[in-house]
Amino acid sequence: MAIQPLRLDPITVLGKQLVIELFDCVDTRFDDIQWIEESMLEAARQANATIITSAFHKFSPIGISGVVVIAESHLAIHTWPEYGYAAVDVFTCGDVLDGAQAVRVLSERLGSQRHLISSMDRGLGGHRLGLLSRSLAGNAPVDGDSPTLRWALGQGTGVA
Amino acid sequence: MAIQPLRLDPITVLGKQLVIELFDCVDTRFDDIQWIEESMLEAARQANATIITSAFHKFSPIGISGVVVIAESHLAIHTWPEYGYAAVDVFTCGDVLDGAQAVRVLSERLGSQRHLISSMDRGLGGHRLGLLSRSLAGNAPVDGDSPTLRWALGQGTGVA
Repeated sequence: MAIQPLRLDPITVLGKQLVIELFDCVDTRFDDIQWIEESMLEAARQANATIITSAFHKFSPIGISGVVVIAESHLAIHTWPEYGYAAVDVFTCGDVLDGAQAVRVLSERLGSQRHLISSMDRGLGGHRLGLLSRSLAGNAPVDGDSPTLRWALGQGTGVA
Repeated sequence: MAIQPLRLDPITVLGKQLVIELFDCVDTRFDDIQWIEESMLEAARQANATIITSAFHKFSPIGISGVVVIAESHLAIHTWPEYGYAAVDVFTCGDVLDGAQAVRVLSERLGSQRHLISSMDRGLGGHRLGLLSRSLAGNAPVDGDSPTLRWALGQGTGVA
């Protein structure tokens, strides 16, 4: 069965943004800035991104913010270790980036047990948010090969 | 009359994200990477942000991507000069940042004639997108003192 399109008119869509909430992140390195930065860089690499630069900041006493600028756009993360929560954005232009793999890598390395992922088209027609994937129960890492996720980023056929 | 709340439960909202489309950007420096970077830094400064670092990239032949990492989170921009279009994100944590002023500065410096701005709450309850401001006609720069914009970022009373 074909998945119902969430997108704006393809002619006017210029960027695609994955809006990702990672809940219940239980990895013990969740507040380690080196681990978070390396995880974001690894996510970018596994998504076939061309990394240009990265910048990360550790808050006192806890919490990390960071951005990886890639030729295909950017990845951003903000963490709240007191809640085991990370807000992640993956913004892509073009068809090269495998955003679903980026999400999978981050979900695994941060030990996220639950997640909520939406896709937002950006462009001349404005923006629109569509829910992609939600796990309510625990122990449900992100599936990087999810047809829905891959389709949302223009990498799948949209046929489930 | 009180504006209807768009927010998730305040207890669970940890970050606020302005999702901004700037259309019809007519400033002649729109594809000048130094102008864009300086505009983003000025936007951060006028929003009372603590700038940590910035990274910008110029595409060939046209187009610019860039991020300013601030202590309060980040600002990101991606431009498509061929369409006079810029996709901007302003992600904030806490109450210090005056995001509406950041948007006003960018809108003015890029010469944007139309815009679409939504606010997205991020946090333990997930995310939700609410339309804040839309100009369909030309020559309508963003009003940094807009009560709706300021309220969305926790800086106003919400009374129009």
